[in-house]
Amino acid sequence: MEEGEERKVRVGLLGFGTIGSSVYGLIEKERPAILEATGVDLRVSRILDIDTSKWGVDAPASLFTADFNDVVGDEEIDIVVELIGGIDRAFEFVSESLRRGKEVVTANKQLIANRGAALFDLAREEGRQLRFEASVGGAIPVIRVMREGMIAAGLHSVYGIVNGTTNYILTAMYEGEGGYADTLARAQELGYAEADPSADVGGGDAAAKMAILASIAYRSRVTMADVTYEGIVDVTLEDVRYAKDFGFVIKLVGAARLIDGKISVRVHPALVPRDHLLASINGSINAVYLQGHAIGEIMLTGPGAGGDPTATAVVGDVMTIAGTQAAGFLQNCSCYKHLEFLSDDLVESAFFIRMQVEDRAGVLAQISSVFGAHQVSIESMIQKGQGDRAELVFITYPSLEKDFFRAIETIAGFACVRSRPMTIRVL
Amino acid sequence: MEEGEERKVRVGLLGFGTIGSSVYGLIEKERPAILEATGVDLRVSRILDIDTSKWGVDAPASLFTADFNDVVGDEEIDIVVELIGGIDRAFEFVSESLRRGKEVVTANKQLIANRGAALFDLAREEGRQLRFEASVGGAIPVIRVMREGMIAAGLHSVYGIVNGTTNYILTAMYEGEGGYADTLARAQELGYAEADPSADVGGGDAAAKMAILASIAYRSRVTMADVTYEGIVDVTLEDVRYAKDFGFVIKLVGAARLIDGKISVRVHPALVPRDHLLASINGSINAVYLQGHAIGEIMLTGPGAGGDPTATAVVGDVMTIAGTQAAGFLQNCSCYKHLEFLSDDLVESAFFIRMQVEDRAGVLAQISSVFGAHQVSIESMIQKGQGDRAELVFITYPSLEKDFFRAIETIAGFACVRSRPMTIRVL
Repeated sequence: MEEGEERKVRVGLLGFGTIGSSVYGLIEKERPAILEATGVDLRVSRILDIDTSKWGVDAPASLFTADFNDVVGDEEIDIVVELIGGIDRAFEFVSESLRRGKEVVTANKQLIANRGAALFDLAREEGRQLRFEASVGGAIPVIRVMREGMIAAGLHSVYGIVNGTTNYILTAMYEGEGGYADTLARAQELGYAEADPSADVGGGDAAAKMAILASIAYRSRVTMADVTYEGIVDVTLEDVRYAKDFGFVIKLVGAARLIDGKISVRVHPALVPRDHLLASINGSINAVYLQGHAIGEIMLTGPGAGGDPTATAVVGDVMTIAGTQAAGFLQNCSCYKHLEFLSDDLVESAFFIRMQVEDRAGVLAQISSVFGAHQVSIESMIQKGQGDRAELVFITYPSLEKDFFRAIETIAGFACVRSRPMTIRVL
Repeated sequence: MEEGEERKVRVGLLGFGTIGSSVYGLIEKERPAILEATGVDLRVSRILDIDTSKWGVDAPASLFTADFNDVVGDEEIDIVVELIGGIDRAFEFVSESLRRGKEVVTANKQLIANRGAALFDLAREEGRQLRFEASVGGAIPVIRVMREGMIAAGLHSVYGIVNGTTNYILTAMYEGEGGYADTLARAQELGYAEADPSADVGGGDAAAKMAILASIAYRSRVTMADVTYEGIVDVTLEDVRYAKDFGFVIKLVGAARLIDGKISVRVHPALVPRDHLLASINGSINAVYLQGHAIGEIMLTGPGAGGDPTATAVVGDVMTIAGTQAAGFLQNCSCYKHLEFLSDDLVESAFFIRMQVEDRAGVLAQISSVFGAHQVSIESMIQKGQGDRAELVFITYPSLEKDFFRAIETIAGFACVRSRPMTIRVL
């Protein structure tokens, strides 16, 4: 960092639930790294939450207020982060923030899917940014990717798994852990499904996300009302089993397609061929495919929900706003720190080893003792006789590479070893 | 679009090979869509290529020049796109472009991996952008994602498959299509490997890409010289087969890790467990995993090379520059067009159908004839007796959904059909 380049950016948080407290915690934790990397001194300076029992627990009580005007009226605050959920009050807070000259970040998919159009128009009139990466796919940066990287991709299909709750349930049903009701109950116990799961299992959550993805992919207005959707409540264990017999896995799939210049956005259960990568997206993971004339197919996958992943997307949006404002670091991204490199000697790896040896008693013992002497443990071994030779193949447990290679040097020098040992690391 | 918001952005292309001609073609093709979506009127206004046989073939001869000064000296040109490859001359052209006030986009991984530091310093001094998304992973926007979306992710590991040529060869070897030399020769015939494949099979190409990814992930200077790498030239069919016996697939893996504040960047063949998603990345596809404290794991996959995918990344960078310049559309991304929606009646889908029927002769024929009358063809069928009932399960070929649902309505009314047919779409 050169001197004088530090720039203060102050954030007002609306709502301090799971995501809000993760956003606060992440900003506190990453502040030094963010400052070093971007020159931006990022702080949460005000938190709105009417539940006073939260005040002072995960953030200093002095930051809290129960009055929205304390946030929107604070001249120091550059960016308002809306995490209260719901539609009407969120709409009011976001509108007022934009009108009062704040930039806004939200994770609220229902707000964007239902009333995004009016908010975008307002943001445009006010010359402010409204960002919403966290509204779809948790930490998966699919909106950023489409909006900025796929401008010339000729996108015509965006599809995938955008609801983790239903994917958790369908994965458990596929793996024989029970029927729909059982696995839903287990998902609720484990926190993967809410007490009222209807938005998830009924498809409405996925529909809101697909409306947002469609609007970004095709740069058109798409709202909840434009999406045809159904959920997984009618999918039985029998369906899952028959689908399996036919070579398919049932997933709740959202698809936004551009066909002859018209948009089709739908969410429904679908049989996915077992060898399709989407069939391997299990549990609460999300995955989105982008297909376009110029790119073929790109896929992004990762955790679709959770405090820290979602907060990562929120902070990413906050920093993109900071970085695209006047002389922002994204125009000129060359803040670098100077990290040292780790010596290869200190890297630990597991190895695959293949070598040809004399086929006689005692050879394996001789080789094994060398590994033992160098703290290399063998996980598995295959020995195959080939005339007067044998081929020995080992897989080791992880050990320091320098120890491993010393062992190999010693072994390679043995008279009973007839070929230079081949070594390949195990991931 | 409101009036008066159109902004001209002019591009000068250095080099008109596969990627250059794709960039030109993509900009020509997508110009109306880009204008509508962003207000930017994007044009290639000059092309540098000394090979005059290309002049006028895929772009008008009037655009071409053999003199770099005609590009860099053109006041109209805002953004120079460097696609000539190599290091020294590319360095000279990029430096001179930055000094003459141009923003620069490059797809040149060797340039960035070897001399990026000096270029970023220069760009910073000149207050210009230097973008290089296309240098790693073709159309996969991994640099954009890390640089802008993962600021608070606490990234500590970036790894994956970043070379398509070696992945093509290793996939073919795994699938029993031949040994290393055979499959390399076939890859060369098919255009997946170059006549001189040493940069790919020796690991140098992947090493350059990993140096770039490491420098972005950890915001430190990482060059080719800092990467420990080996290629796949010593991997034999025996290794691939033994690895398979142990449940592994051999891949050329690049990994950039942050361990105790120190960076380790390595490229080497690695045994990947068969149930790891990376083991399913076959052929010339690339895949990059991002792991961080706050995000768990995110993965991006797609075509790692090729004219159009790489050109998509180049144009994405060009548009990001246009969008982050004064009052750029990325600060205020609310240009929308108004597309119509496709009626669900016009959507074609294949279906899975399950229903309980009376277990007597003639039922299947009766049902089949209804499908036939509505232009719905059956792809496969299972019939299972269950006492006096039978369960019928069909998978159909795609047909218009309205035809399909009419057939189902008719069938559901039959006396021999004992349950409401369950229908689930096939992806």
